[in-house]
Amino acid sequence: MDILVIMLQLQRHPVAVVCILLCCVTQSTTMPDPKHREALMRQEEAMQTGGQQVLSAEEQRLGDRFQKLKQQEMSREDFPPAMHFFKARHLIRNSPIYSLLHDMPKGGALHVHDFSMVEVEWLVKNVTYRPHCYMCFTTGTGDDRSLRFVFSSGQPKPLPLCSPWSLLERLRAKMGNATDLDDSIIANLTLFTEKDPNVVYPSQDVVWKRFEQTFLVAWGLVTHAPVFRDYYHQGLMRFYEDNVMYLELRALLPETYELDGSTHDRAWDMKTYQDVTRQFTAQHPDFYGARVIFTVHRGMNASMVTTAVEEALRLQRDFPETMAGFDLVGREDTGRPLWYFREALSLPEERGLTLPYFFHAGETDTEGTEVDQNILDALLFNTSRIGHGFALIRHPLAREMSRKRGVAVEVCPISNQVLKLVADLRNHPAAVLFSEGHPVVISSDDPAQLGTSALSDDFYEAFVGFGGMRSHIGTLKELAMNSIKYSSLSQEQQQEALTLWQRKWDKFVSENSF
Amino acid sequence: MDILVIMLQLQRHPVAVVCILLCCVTQSTTMPDPKHREALMRQEEAMQTGGQQVLSAEEQRLGDRFQKLKQQEMSREDFPPAMHFFKARHLIRNSPIYSLLHDMPKGGALHVHDFSMVEVEWLVKNVTYRPHCYMCFTTGTGDDRSLRFVFSSGQPKPLPLCSPWSLLERLRAKMGNATDLDDSIIANLTLFTEKDPNVVYPSQDVVWKRFEQTFLVAWGLVTHAPVFRDYYHQGLMRFYEDNVMYLELRALLPETYELDGSTHDRAWDMKTYQDVTRQFTAQHPDFYGARVIFTVHRGMNASMVTTAVEEALRLQRDFPETMAGFDLVGREDTGRPLWYFREALSLPEERGLTLPYFFHAGETDTEGTEVDQNILDALLFNTSRIGHGFALIRHPLAREMSRKRGVAVEVCPISNQVLKLVADLRNHPAAVLFSEGHPVVISSDDPAQLGTSALSDDFYEAFVGFGGMRSHIGTLKELAMNSIKYSSLSQEQQQEALTLWQRKWDKFVSENSF
Repeated sequence: MDILVIMLQLQRHPVAVVCILLCCVTQSTTMPDPKHREALMRQEEAMQTGGQQVLSAEEQRLGDRFQKLKQQEMSREDFPPAMHFFKARHLIRNSPIYSLLHDMPKGGALHVHDFSMVEVEWLVKNVTYRPHCYMCFTTGTGDDRSLRFVFSSGQPKPLPLCSPWSLLERLRAKMGNATDLDDSIIANLTLFTEKDPNVVYPSQDVVWKRFEQTFLVAWGLVTHAPVFRDYYHQGLMRFYEDNVMYLELRALLPETYELDGSTHDRAWDMKTYQDVTRQFTAQHPDFYGARVIFTVHRGMNASMVTTAVEEALRLQRDFPETMAGFDLVGREDTGRPLWYFREALSLPEERGLTLPYFFHAGETDTEGTEVDQNILDALLFNTSRIGHGFALIRHPLAREMSRKRGVAVEVCPISNQVLKLVADLRNHPAAVLFSEGHPVVISSDDPAQLGTSALSDDFYEAFVGFGGMRSHIGTLKELAMNSIKYSSLSQEQQQEALTLWQRKWDKFVSENSF
Repeated sequence: MDILVIMLQLQRHPVAVVCILLCCVTQSTTMPDPKHREALMRQEEAMQTGGQQVLSAEEQRLGDRFQKLKQQEMSREDFPPAMHFFKARHLIRNSPIYSLLHDMPKGGALHVHDFSMVEVEWLVKNVTYRPHCYMCFTTGTGDDRSLRFVFSSGQPKPLPLCSPWSLLERLRAKMGNATDLDDSIIANLTLFTEKDPNVVYPSQDVVWKRFEQTFLVAWGLVTHAPVFRDYYHQGLMRFYEDNVMYLELRALLPETYELDGSTHDRAWDMKTYQDVTRQFTAQHPDFYGARVIFTVHRGMNASMVTTAVEEALRLQRDFPETMAGFDLVGREDTGRPLWYFREALSLPEERGLTLPYFFHAGETDTEGTEVDQNILDALLFNTSRIGHGFALIRHPLAREMSRKRGVAVEVCPISNQVLKLVADLRNHPAAVLFSEGHPVVISSDDPAQLGTSALSDDFYEAFVGFGGMRSHIGTLKELAMNSIKYSSLSQEQQQEALTLWQRKWDKFVSENSF
């Protein structure tokens, strides 16, 4: 029987095909049969992400264009995915393949943090120029020296370990030219730097410390209630403009405050997210919406997380449209492992309730440690997706569980590179997940801190970097569709979103397939 | 039925266990059953390299010592496997875990190149001080500026693109202090540098160019017949002293020459290897021996490789004790793919002969290119092992073929790092192979050029780096045994070698388990 016939018959049964092909191969005579070889190559292609996509003639033409552009990109000496993103960014942004990926309807971004949606320049040039904005310098030297902000109608009360508060308006007036000050604020809000990133951030410890600092700098700005609302609206706009139509936001739902010092609780935050989302989708009917994954820091103790889970259940009851689930954030290597929180995480089921989990797990390159069990534990707690899952490929059992149950991995390539899990993005472990058609979505984690566009830079790294010459337009199509399929949306909503996406996709394909 | 009972029953059937465990897990009630969790963790441990090793009480005690030392090593801020080996070397060499790994009987080294066995200092301080040694400077600037050597009883005839030959003895006498000259020769013979390696070697292209240059510098020294013999003897000594008992050498079998300019052919080289090996094993009865894998450069054209394969068949007939098989060497990314040589490689079978292949394949991080097919093609040509196989984990079909057929991957961690395939050795793809118990051996590729010890540095990186806290004494034991099991030795020889190794191992364990 012709091997190609077998393949066509068994296209939906890759495992069976593997067995058959392996048997054929072991009977090799003089030269390996080129047909067998071809069949094996085609089979490996069929197994990968996007390998089962049926493409129209138009899509194939666009696919050819993508492959030609990628070939050009791969033949450059300064190949961007092999470089640190901070050095590669201008090359990426100037590449024709980036323009196409920018225009491409990418579906949803499922792994993005609340206070990293908008480029930090907006915070500085817009937010810090608003009235009543105060700044202070933290004490400490070198990397520890940082900034804090607060909005206040009167002189705010002093902050421990910080200089006296200065009204920014007055400070800028005194300086005449505020450019240096603004640049210095910008530098404190993001990891992005023009200097050599490997010198500035020589280790994971250093880069994580600086990373967590940037959130503290932004804190006083973004938790001011009017800014909170504006920031989120701006954030939705950034994703929308980058051709992302849906968002799932990891949100800390912090205490927000007004000028007079009065504060709002989590329900207010949630209601604000809901209102702004409704308003935004009303104004932009081709944007499908956004949902919120409530997150707390994994440095918390067990009882604090129990309280947070209870809060999450209340929010879910009160905001079913917007509230998607629960997660723990912060650096895994120095935080508490999921198993430490097992009682808190079991609480919903004990009460007969369902709280979907979207756990960060395996954002580490240590192996065999307690933290390295997070992936398995995330799956044991029935996580809906795995955030990062960088270590998943080193856990064959967990990988199998994740695949069988359709638990998608949220792959954030640039974040993993900047936080020093991987240097050359061709070697990102998602290359292995791609090769097996493992359920994956691409996301951007922290655009503001990483200096990335909403989603296109990460799509570039995935497609041109670890996608290699093997990934193609079918891969891109599947990644976009995955972002809806593996979202927290209901079946009906997914169908609706998919229809909306398909319309955009068809338009994109017809406009670009020449 | 208790899950642990199932596990014990099915310990030899990991796939069945996976299915059973996955079913159990999906029936989770409130909290994941800690017993299930434990069983899954144990099962993942059992799947990994060394996970099935049954350990004596003494081995377990030594294992505890190893784990304690590794824990210490992992808690340092300057964690060596996360650093470039050139910067990490002094840390590694001073670590107590290195001393243990050095003393440990490691079995065989199956992937080592002929002219990289001995530290380059020996070439300079011993070989270039011999009489009749001439040196010239190549023309060219910067990285292209290099050295060439020749031994000759009279003034050698000029070399194109090189300065006139200087007799080293005279040159050194003229200079008085030869230290600077010697240091500069050393620097030309190795990639190792005290400078920042990422600055000196910013890209794969640059490091490969310099790498191939170092072989040209050594060429005139090591192909001088008396040096050829001495070099190999010294090489065996280096491996023996590093507690390696067997070697498979990738050898170019070059034209060797005498002082008067007369030359020897490949058969002479082979006979020399055979004689020196016999002599060495006679002097060191606890060294098992060495075999040769004849290699040619993949830059050759098809007809040259056909000639080489014919030569390989002749050598195999004439030196069955020493000749192990055939391979192609040189950088895969810029060389010809295996499929280009398909007719030459099919020649032995066409003639009803068997020529074992030990192909370099997948020493690349490009994907979906012609070169990236080398892994599959190596398997289609029934390769006995895969050299490097860095890209194997991205090829699910090839990985399955390699595992099913017991085609071991020769993992050379430091080589892959220095040649810029991977920066942080915790992320070496062999971590994935380890996690699945894929057949692997650890080797050192090019100790002289990389500045490594014969094998212990690479064992350190494998064990402490991508082995993580999960790898243990069972892993080390299996790696050592694998190096015999996957060698080219006959079944009887393997049994003999294994008995010899076991004796050494028992002694090592009893001397170090306290």
